[in-house]
Amino acid sequence: MISHIDSLFQLVDFLGVFVGAISGGLMAVRDTRYKYDVVGVVGLAFATALGGGIARDIILQKGPPLAFVDVRYLVLALSGAFVAMIFAGRMRGRAERVMVLIDAAALGLFAVAGTTRALNAGLRPLPALLLGGVTAVGGGCLRDVLSGRTPRIFEGGQLYAIAAVLGSAAFLLSDRLGDTREVSTIIGTLCGFGVRSLAVMYDWQTRPVRSQD
Amino acid sequence: MISHIDSLFQLVDFLGVFVGAISGGLMAVRDTRYKYDVVGVVGLAFATALGGGIARDIILQKGPPLAFVDVRYLVLALSGAFVAMIFAGRMRGRAERVMVLIDAAALGLFAVAGTTRALNAGLRPLPALLLGGVTAVGGGCLRDVLSGRTPRIFEGGQLYAIAAVLGSAAFLLSDRLGDTREVSTIIGTLCGFGVRSLAVMYDWQTRPVRSQD
Amino acid sequence: MISHIDSLFQLVDFLGVFVGAISGGLMAVRDTRYKYDVVGVVGLAFATALGGGIARDIILQKGPPLAFVDVRYLVLALSGAFVAMIFAGRMRGRAERVMVLIDAAALGLFAVAGTTRALNAGLRPLPALLLGGVTAVGGGCLRDVLSGRTPRIFEGGQLYAIAAVLGSAAFLLSDRLGDTREVSTIIGTLCGFGVRSLAVMYDWQTRPVRSQD
Repeated sequence: MISHIDSLFQLVDFLGVFVGAISGGLMAVRDTRYKYDVVGVVGLAFATALGGGIARDIILQKGPPLAFVDVRYLVLALSGAFVAMIFAGRMRGRAERVMVLIDAAALGLFAVAGTTRALNAGLRPLPALLLGGVTAVGGGCLRDVLSGRTPRIFEGGQLYAIAAVLGSAAFLLSDRLGDTREVSTIIGTLCGFGVRSLAVMYDWQTRPVRSQD
Repeated sequence: MISHIDSLFQLVDFLGVFVGAISGGLMAVRDTRYKYDVVGVVGLAFATALGGGIARDIILQKGPPLAFVDVRYLVLALSGAFVAMIFAGRMRGRAERVMVLIDAAALGLFAVAGTTRALNAGLRPLPALLLGGVTAVGGGCLRDVLSGRTPRIFEGGQLYAIAAVLGSAAFLLSDRLGDTREVSTIIGTLCGFGVRSLAVMYDWQTRPVRSQD
Repeated sequence: MISHIDSLFQLVDFLGVFVGAISGGLMAVRDTRYKYDVVGVVGLAFATALGGGIARDIILQKGPPLAFVDVRYLVLALSGAFVAMIFAGRMRGRAERVMVLIDAAALGLFAVAGTTRALNAGLRPLPALLLGGVTAVGGGCLRDVLSGRTPRIFEGGQLYAIAAVLGSAAFLLSDRLGDTREVSTIIGTLCGFGVRSLAVMYDWQTRPVRSQD
């Protein structure tokens, strides 16, 4: 049972990296401001897919980032970049909706995984929550900064970072209430996934904070 | 006596993080190019308040950044972000002048604190000076890059990075002349604070380096 | 013989940092969008010259980055920044062509040096290849992001990142075939240098990846 759940986590993790790379690559292919070449597509795909985990591991300082140690992450990110280049014209409609769902699942899992690693490193709940958020949204932020713009998650729009933080918070609460790590991980991931999916489905938006000046 | 001074350093450090978060949050609220939501305000507040110290600790590689270990920094940064959101309309005139002064004091202290940690890690004076500067101005740089622009300190304007470097240099000189760490810290902080305050008061500006082409 | 080669590597390394600082400084002086002051010129010079190596060392997590430990790198970068400020008007034609050549040699060497350090840290070939690329092009990327734009290497243009990756790949192949580290380093560096130089000479360009939408 436990090993099935671990395999499921691993699958979501890998799928998340793969889909992250596709979405980063697609953003490069479709960018109207810069004319990205293959280096740009691969670069933005890598940044999107691996940036969050690399930021997490650099902050925790427990050795080189997982993306440089377990070679499967690089292979998946590279594959995603090439999928983006080859199928860019066909990645519309249904394919894009599937990608949003996988990305939502990965958002929940990355947030929980970041929080778990932070707790394992001896960090308190609040920093662990922040690190969960950084893991989940760091890749997209890096992609946007490398595209010469502010992170999209900073702007008003469908809940994204907030879904990640709620997932981490649900995990921490479940963990605090004495659930096993497996149960807490499922609860946290489902919470992040659920909030994000519902936000997309029902268009739950954050409002811009307007200045009263 | 020593413990009073330590308490004072701690107070300036905390106030600096709090004021940094307010100023980062205000910049998000008032931005005219992007429409930041609550995630953007908190994100830019965190980046401004904690970015310099996190960069310092990631470079020194002595374990996770202080901002993730001592939970008070996160609480202060979060409070600053909410102050920015709630009081954005009233943060003009007198309040803004007080913030500039606190920021100047924090600039001096952060520079000296970064240099001190670098020396403690066995670095030489010149890299320690650079790390002091990175600690003092890194948060503002990160905020600007996350806003999709060049760091404001890179452009012509009232002395800022130079005040930080002069503060660090004064600290190093005093340290080299045999003063205790407490005395050197006071001298360095006052020097950074003084240069920055005078630059604001008398509008001491750096000039743009013009190309002769 | 070996020591002569080591001296040569060291010379190329130092020259590369120096030329990187000049080119970063020149870009600041000549920027038309922002009006950089001395802090901006030094900042962009440091980012260009040292950014790649700092990124490499932060990812490998074997202690503070070399640029903060060996003070000669900072001195060279600072000198390069001042050369850029003083001679900006005269850095055209022949001087610029010499700089492109030195930069090409440094590109090859940085890529191989990054890959070597990655292998020494126990990383596999594919991550080592990526880290070689990051070392070689990271400084320029950081410079561009700090200038509020996408990395130039991401856009269509004369081969740059690809030359670095080919240099690393040649090094890895030679290393795998049983050559000594010195021979592999020479082969990899010459390959990166050669591809980049030929790309400049014969204007080998990557094409933008266009969207079929």
